[in-house]
Amino acid sequence: MSKGKVCLAYSGGLDTSIILAWLLDEGYEVVAFMADVGQEEDFDAAREKALKIGATKYVVVDCREDFVNDILFPAVQVNAVYEDIYLLGTSLARPVIAKAQIDVARQEGCFAVSHGCTGKGNDQIRFELAFYALKTDVKVIAPWRLPEFFERFAGRKDLLDYAAEKGIPVAQTKAKPWSTDENQAHISYEAGILEDPDTTPPKDMWKLTVDPMDAPNTPQDLSIDFEVGLPVKVSYEQDGKKVEVTKPIDIFNHVSNLARANGVGRIDIVEDRYINLKSRGCYEQAPLTVLRRAHVDLEGLTLDKEVRALRDQFVTPTYSKLLYNGSYFTPECEFIRSMIKPSQKSVNGTVRVRLYKGNVMILGRSSKTEKLYDPTESSMDELTGFSPIDTSGFIAIQAIRVKKYGDANKNLTL
Amino acid sequence: MSKGKVCLAYSGGLDTSIILAWLLDEGYEVVAFMADVGQEEDFDAAREKALKIGATKYVVVDCREDFVNDILFPAVQVNAVYEDIYLLGTSLARPVIAKAQIDVARQEGCFAVSHGCTGKGNDQIRFELAFYALKTDVKVIAPWRLPEFFERFAGRKDLLDYAAEKGIPVAQTKAKPWSTDENQAHISYEAGILEDPDTTPPKDMWKLTVDPMDAPNTPQDLSIDFEVGLPVKVSYEQDGKKVEVTKPIDIFNHVSNLARANGVGRIDIVEDRYINLKSRGCYEQAPLTVLRRAHVDLEGLTLDKEVRALRDQFVTPTYSKLLYNGSYFTPECEFIRSMIKPSQKSVNGTVRVRLYKGNVMILGRSSKTEKLYDPTESSMDELTGFSPIDTSGFIAIQAIRVKKYGDANKNLTL
Amino acid sequence: MSKGKVCLAYSGGLDTSIILAWLLDEGYEVVAFMADVGQEEDFDAAREKALKIGATKYVVVDCREDFVNDILFPAVQVNAVYEDIYLLGTSLARPVIAKAQIDVARQEGCFAVSHGCTGKGNDQIRFELAFYALKTDVKVIAPWRLPEFFERFAGRKDLLDYAAEKGIPVAQTKAKPWSTDENQAHISYEAGILEDPDTTPPKDMWKLTVDPMDAPNTPQDLSIDFEVGLPVKVSYEQDGKKVEVTKPIDIFNHVSNLARANGVGRIDIVEDRYINLKSRGCYEQAPLTVLRRAHVDLEGLTLDKEVRALRDQFVTPTYSKLLYNGSYFTPECEFIRSMIKPSQKSVNGTVRVRLYKGNVMILGRSSKTEKLYDPTESSMDELTGFSPIDTSGFIAIQAIRVKKYGDANKNLTL
Amino acid sequence: MSKGKVCLAYSGGLDTSIILAWLLDEGYEVVAFMADVGQEEDFDAAREKALKIGATKYVVVDCREDFVNDILFPAVQVNAVYEDIYLLGTSLARPVIAKAQIDVARQEGCFAVSHGCTGKGNDQIRFELAFYALKTDVKVIAPWRLPEFFERFAGRKDLLDYAAEKGIPVAQTKAKPWSTDENQAHISYEAGILEDPDTTPPKDMWKLTVDPMDAPNTPQDLSIDFEVGLPVKVSYEQDGKKVEVTKPIDIFNHVSNLARANGVGRIDIVEDRYINLKSRGCYEQAPLTVLRRAHVDLEGLTLDKEVRALRDQFVTPTYSKLLYNGSYFTPECEFIRSMIKPSQKSVNGTVRVRLYKGNVMILGRSSKTEKLYDPTESSMDELTGFSPIDTSGFIAIQAIRVKKYGDANKNLTL
Repeated sequence: MSKGKVCLAYSGGLDTSIILAWLLDEGYEVVAFMADVGQEEDFDAAREKALKIGATKYVVVDCREDFVNDILFPAVQVNAVYEDIYLLGTSLARPVIAKAQIDVARQEGCFAVSHGCTGKGNDQIRFELAFYALKTDVKVIAPWRLPEFFERFAGRKDLLDYAAEKGIPVAQTKAKPWSTDENQAHISYEAGILEDPDTTPPKDMWKLTVDPMDAPNTPQDLSIDFEVGLPVKVSYEQDGKKVEVTKPIDIFNHVSNLARANGVGRIDIVEDRYINLKSRGCYEQAPLTVLRRAHVDLEGLTLDKEVRALRDQFVTPTYSKLLYNGSYFTPECEFIRSMIKPSQKSVNGTVRVRLYKGNVMILGRSSKTEKLYDPTESSMDELTGFSPIDTSGFIAIQAIRVKKYGDANKNLTL
Repeated sequence: MSKGKVCLAYSGGLDTSIILAWLLDEGYEVVAFMADVGQEEDFDAAREKALKIGATKYVVVDCREDFVNDILFPAVQVNAVYEDIYLLGTSLARPVIAKAQIDVARQEGCFAVSHGCTGKGNDQIRFELAFYALKTDVKVIAPWRLPEFFERFAGRKDLLDYAAEKGIPVAQTKAKPWSTDENQAHISYEAGILEDPDTTPPKDMWKLTVDPMDAPNTPQDLSIDFEVGLPVKVSYEQDGKKVEVTKPIDIFNHVSNLARANGVGRIDIVEDRYINLKSRGCYEQAPLTVLRRAHVDLEGLTLDKEVRALRDQFVTPTYSKLLYNGSYFTPECEFIRSMIKPSQKSVNGTVRVRLYKGNVMILGRSSKTEKLYDPTESSMDELTGFSPIDTSGFIAIQAIRVKKYGDANKNLTL
Repeated sequence: MSKGKVCLAYSGGLDTSIILAWLLDEGYEVVAFMADVGQEEDFDAAREKALKIGATKYVVVDCREDFVNDILFPAVQVNAVYEDIYLLGTSLARPVIAKAQIDVARQEGCFAVSHGCTGKGNDQIRFELAFYALKTDVKVIAPWRLPEFFERFAGRKDLLDYAAEKGIPVAQTKAKPWSTDENQAHISYEAGILEDPDTTPPKDMWKLTVDPMDAPNTPQDLSIDFEVGLPVKVSYEQDGKKVEVTKPIDIFNHVSNLARANGVGRIDIVEDRYINLKSRGCYEQAPLTVLRRAHVDLEGLTLDKEVRALRDQFVTPTYSKLLYNGSYFTPECEFIRSMIKPSQKSVNGTVRVRLYKGNVMILGRSSKTEKLYDPTESSMDELTGFSPIDTSGFIAIQAIRVKKYGDANKNLTL
Repeated sequence: MSKGKVCLAYSGGLDTSIILAWLLDEGYEVVAFMADVGQEEDFDAAREKALKIGATKYVVVDCREDFVNDILFPAVQVNAVYEDIYLLGTSLARPVIAKAQIDVARQEGCFAVSHGCTGKGNDQIRFELAFYALKTDVKVIAPWRLPEFFERFAGRKDLLDYAAEKGIPVAQTKAKPWSTDENQAHISYEAGILEDPDTTPPKDMWKLTVDPMDAPNTPQDLSIDFEVGLPVKVSYEQDGKKVEVTKPIDIFNHVSNLARANGVGRIDIVEDRYINLKSRGCYEQAPLTVLRRAHVDLEGLTLDKEVRALRDQFVTPTYSKLLYNGSYFTPECEFIRSMIKPSQKSVNGTVRVRLYKGNVMILGRSSKTEKLYDPTESSMDELTGFSPIDTSGFIAIQAIRVKKYGDANKNLTL
């Protein structure tokens, strides 16, 4: 008799295949779940493999549009970035996948969910905190944190032996000396040879983007329209033809294709995991690199200075940290998310961007509706709007404190 | 009889030459002051011109080393940046120049200082707040904010007429349709044709950096060593020879030369001036782009996560804003500056960088002394340091709040 | 012929009566405006005086309910406080008054507004920034910043002479040696003898609250209900009868009466004005003291920890500073205000409060709807909800960084 | 043969006596450790009891002066406070005690430390994180998180049975229906009947402070001198005699005695524990209430506005949270601590304070050295220092953004 149904986040790879078989061994029924978040994947092969191993059912959920609409575009709106450079590609996919998995778990009557994340990474936390928020009575089975599992499968040989025993097919291609996670926003590389932070990744590791050194000699220009901080149109010329797309997922994918083709978005960092370990990661984050850069630029033209400063100091880093730490479904993240829209009312306009061998260059920006920038007023050559005498008063008021400081500190140095 | 001595920040250009003559007309004695902050400048010609117009004395102060040691390197230490992208090139030079000008004013017995800044910009504020802190009884003469001056010289023709009248030589070259400010860290372009934020700057505007499209096809690699967050050595190969420099100003200049030659550091933004106007600026900030990027990278390897997060949310933006707003010599900036060093004790190591057609790529990083990153510990393949069971506890404690949130919000969506 | 209509914020006192007469002298028509924000005031006498001096019209606007609903209660919701102790009584009234004055200016066809604020205070800024936001083309006449006015009326004698000349009645009672500003939330005292910050205010200065030393020996208990952070009911016993009120203005006034009668809410501080001067002020802020204290207490029971911490570090101080600095009608204040409601969804419940000789004591709190506090779960005597073993894991994960710190710093001291 | 020496934080109470006996049972040698942090305690009785049960040694460390100098006074300097009201009494003692316990562990050759904290509280974390930082290889034995212990001693009866078996004397006085933690800064009450947050604590619970209702009818005035933000003298009159103390621990204790005698410092809150549970606590925090209030007041007079605002928004809440969460010995706390001194250079002067039936009233403040407050300058009656015209310029510059906001939002409401 079954101990109940478990919804397993299945990847088709060795680890989750082993977990599938092991869960069956332990007496559970298993529903194999996959999320399509834009990764390169053979879903049919995965289905076949899962069912062959013994899954009761295989369910794939197409999350690509939700991912763009609910997560990726808001991330652009808020300029999300972790530790100055990482655009959060993996983290951003987690809430979408977890939501889809819990939905499947409910539909299929599963009392538990399971995943193949290791016990040292961020993803286990991201998934599980989301699971607990979305279904507070769910049971989570995390084999790589269960002694009965991780002690049994202490090395790769144990996995292969078990696979042989269970008739699980193992890919004949040699495993890459790193692990990856891919979705439509990015791919990550970590572990293996990358664990030495001074090892430059081999050229053939990078998968999604053209090497900047091999990218076209002719730059690619494009134009991105934003409304309330959200991309609403991308237009560019290709092979002499004007291309223009307006659906969010199309915008995202077209920007992605152009960015990848021009070598944009590779980074290599040592970052801080939520569980207080440092970790080296390489990422290709082509589309977000372009969209974020263009969005930041448009904010320069259209967003009030103080709103921007408050948002920059508070909302952006907090939201980014919460996403990184897997805290999307928390009261504080709901609170912070509620601040994104009110900050973006005036972020309307067009940014012209050039992509060239890894560079994202701004060619210009404009807005038909917003009037915060007024060239006449800013012009050094004109005296519109205020009298220069006003500035004297402004400085005099600031100087009150400054003079007191000078009086109290007679020998100020640099 | 003289109304007293004024120390004028003299540039050798038309505006400050007019001001010099006008101050003399008004009955002041004038000491012409110039700061050498690494800009391209013919100091001899300026001296000759100033004395010819009638300056009592011409003084040039070489600030280049102080600029690197006291301002530029600390800016690298704190990752200073304004509005996500501007590395503060102009702002950083202001405290150095103002300090030198006040020193000269004291030495020469000047009761007042004067400058040629317009009444709408940031620089007037940066200079004057510094003046008032450094010499609280100084009188500031800002002609472009004095009606008797700005009404008289309402147009370029008025300036040229006055120049002719006073025998002030005027450059025969046609004025560029923008204005610039240069120092060893950067050059800025603004005003004129740049006031339309959708106008792409002409290719021949950019002066310090090679166009990325014309930059060498062969990348330039270099290696930067940091101690307590400060660059202490740069090494690279050139023409088959190993180059290695360790003096701060040499480090800065060598990085600058390599970065400029490889098209690094051009930006184009609309930014928010202190006086609440938006302004479009283009900048070439080659050396700071490389040094900041390398420094941020090394922090990933060597800086504690929480120290970094606190510094990022608080110290970096506050320091950057204060510098931008001309508040270097203020109690709050002294307070914030005191936080830089304590944040950098562990930032020791080497970063290997590649420059290529505008890109700054990280090839790897290492540290002989710091142990925050431990590849074995972070490795997904090893169970050193802590038991995976610990993570279960960590997640369970986080899940307490999360489950309450889920219980109170039964239909959470993305 | 009139130079146009001016809407003057009229107080009935000497200064604004002089200004009224002076504006007439200058050739303006004047509409005298008063806002009823709950201050003790003889509006009829003021009307009579204004019309006698020559005002075209006298308009009083009852702002008391708007003040409570739109400003005071949101201030309670966000726990507004400036420099740790000042509950912003004066600042809070300014947006309401300015809005009413601009409404009157529009209705009466005034092209300009005027006020009697001095040139060194906060109020001039608070009023004028609001004026400019609400009617961007309004002209502001601030006589105390106009040389033709402040030089003419350099001393009190000049004012009295002019009053005599114009037939303006002057109160025979001796002026208090301080100035005050009153509304239903508070009264302020400053200037005069209070300018020595070491002078204890005389007992008879305090007007709204009973001296704690003279307050009743029997404590007064009351119970305040909140919904989404807003007070919705106050109940208490008085003379053996149960009193219960639910209308916002009634709640505010009943709490005010009880607090005043029990000596609650006196403070004495040196604060920082927006224009960079320090200033000594004494305030009676009885009702806000009680409501804020109760609200903070209820948040302890019902508000998520992280939402609270984010709100405390960011929203509360920023909102308070903006209000203090007269920036209510700004993009950044609109942005910050939008964060108040989302932070308060769960702040529902009842707080029982005791007032006694200046003290506000919490007797207890409860919530029928919120479940964040769970006595069983928190109990040291029970093991519900999570296993103590989980805490070991939680600590182990935190200890990772801590041990690295200990290893790198062998001789840590306090 | 012994399994090694354990240093146990011993309180003399039932729980830690049981733990002592159990550790012996488990085969350890035990050094019983007590810290004197100013709590009311019979150290001799504790010694006798520990040795009787079987401790190898009993060590009491007098931490009172270190506690004042290294922790309590810096907490005053930084205005430490958690969740708006809790002055962190228990948290503040933890680093001192942990440091002393590790020192004893080292001296006595203990490989492990142990404590009697429960698995749901903050104290286990505070102690253990400190232990791990101070001796990274220490083993921590936390019996209340070990199943073999907490399952065996599931109820009070199990403890009493074991005590009887081991001959451990049990106090005949009935246990209070709450638990307490005391040190020279405060006492806490929690658990038991207090777990209902709507239960008003009984009058006889409060131990250290006189009930405000029973406190003297005559107020107690005192004067506190600060240098660089640290109390350096307290003076007051008692029984007609002038008392003056200057040693830190004397200052602390005299203020404590006066505050306790006048009913100052009782609070009752629901707070957020580090491990994400809410908890109700009642605290008597008499001395810190007075010292913090006086210190805040003096900052009004002597601390620069912007330094204060930065410190308030960043340093104070971060330091307070870190202390609460037991993160004293962490890189981030070291970083934050380094900011306290630089913020306090100008906090020099005297505050006159009145204590009366629970109230702390400020009578006045003065400084001989600091000049930030200048009554003449602030005076509404004088025009020293700057021209009122300057303020017009100041407002005009602020109005630039405000008018743009008004233009873009034509119907602004409150």
